[in-house]
Amino acid sequence: MLLHHEIDQLNAEYAAALDDRRFEEWPEFFIETGRYTLQARENFDQGLPLALMALESRGMMKDRVYGVTQTIYHGPYYTRHVVSPARVLSQIRNEVCAEAQYAVFRTRPGGAGGGVSEVYNVGRYIDTLVRVEGRLRFKSRLAVYDSEMVLNSLIYPV
Amino acid sequence: MLLHHEIDQLNAEYAAALDDRRFEEWPEFFIETGRYTLQARENFDQGLPLALMALESRGMMKDRVYGVTQTIYHGPYYTRHVVSPARVLSQIRNEVCAEAQYAVFRTRPGGAGGGVSEVYNVGRYIDTLVRVEGRLRFKSRLAVYDSEMVLNSLIYPV
Amino acid sequence: MLLHHEIDQLNAEYAAALDDRRFEEWPEFFIETGRYTLQARENFDQGLPLALMALESRGMMKDRVYGVTQTIYHGPYYTRHVVSPARVLSQIRNEVCAEAQYAVFRTRPGGAGGGVSEVYNVGRYIDTLVRVEGRLRFKSRLAVYDSEMVLNSLIYPV
Repeated sequence: MLLHHEIDQLNAEYAAALDDRRFEEWPEFFIETGRYTLQARENFDQGLPLALMALESRGMMKDRVYGVTQTIYHGPYYTRHVVSPARVLSQIRNEVCAEAQYAVFRTRPGGAGGGVSEVYNVGRYIDTLVRVEGRLRFKSRLAVYDSEMVLNSLIYPV
Repeated sequence: MLLHHEIDQLNAEYAAALDDRRFEEWPEFFIETGRYTLQARENFDQGLPLALMALESRGMMKDRVYGVTQTIYHGPYYTRHVVSPARVLSQIRNEVCAEAQYAVFRTRPGGAGGGVSEVYNVGRYIDTLVRVEGRLRFKSRLAVYDSEMVLNSLIYPV
Repeated sequence: MLLHHEIDQLNAEYAAALDDRRFEEWPEFFIETGRYTLQARENFDQGLPLALMALESRGMMKDRVYGVTQTIYHGPYYTRHVVSPARVLSQIRNEVCAEAQYAVFRTRPGGAGGGVSEVYNVGRYIDTLVRVEGRLRFKSRLAVYDSEMVLNSLIYPV
């Protein structure tokens, strides 16, 4: 139960970091060799490898963050993550497997989309967590989204 | 608090079973004489009996699942449940009453709706739970939804 | 962890009170000198004071509730709050700071909007809580919403 509580806190911190646009903190949720994958459900269900984002180390994540914040030309948008309480699937030694359902809403400020909030990306997180120096971090976070049509400007990690 | 934790886990497992389309597991969340009701808020508030689904045993649920998976002709769609932490209303002997807010998003793959995820059904679960062989199960789950207009293809339980 | 649990319960009760339209209970979630603020993210981020609602005591909240239920002419609508597990930011003596992500869905019954549920207001709660007679209450609840365009009939507190 303590673990369940910790995972919910981690998910809440992760969501807040992204939604507050503290992108530079995002790689810190992972271990150095951590993986982040954002994949359509259709590909995941069929075991296909194609993914919208597949980052295989914290270094790649930092690179992505640099791209997002410094170089990629895009219309900025706000995100808002609402995440259900997680369920713990297994715990073997130091390694925990957990899943959580999420919905991300998008709001484009300044005219585009009229400032209305809309459903952006819904799915589930499939996570492997390890404890490092007393704190849980992602060894792997796989976000599998239902939406086939990803609005063409998906820029930020989910 | 332990109870609260258990209910959140149950809700997460329930949601995952439906969203992963493991429909055959769905009746197992209920006791043998369990009831599942899906009702519009308008009818619920007025005490009217009309409900979109009213299943009064696990047998009826299995029948429904058979219908959903084998016989009902429908355009398949993905669902995604996001459920708030539950609140425990009462606990009398073996029986727990609890409620939780939910939002279900729908994504129709393969063209219809363009693969965009949309708000499908929002409402609250009003639950009576009992412990059977150490595990919580629904004696009754009543899903009361706000949406008046249920998109005509509501096929799967919520 | 107990605290985290209590906050989630409080958030669930708060949401249920509003969504069940028990508006007269809403001020009771605050201390007598409690503050409720509903503010656009744009203003919040820039430190601007403009807010859609800024109520500085329970008395003002009661007044607002009176307005909502008795005097303001408006098309009624249902709300549904889905709130993520909270994260506790700090706890100093009696005072707890916490945040939670929320999404509010709106359903207009009786024709307007066709009874479809739609994303209404998404954002985060930034809360200061104190314990009064053993129960947590809001010293301050600030709801910062992403949506720039607030549908013109935002009547009820979020």
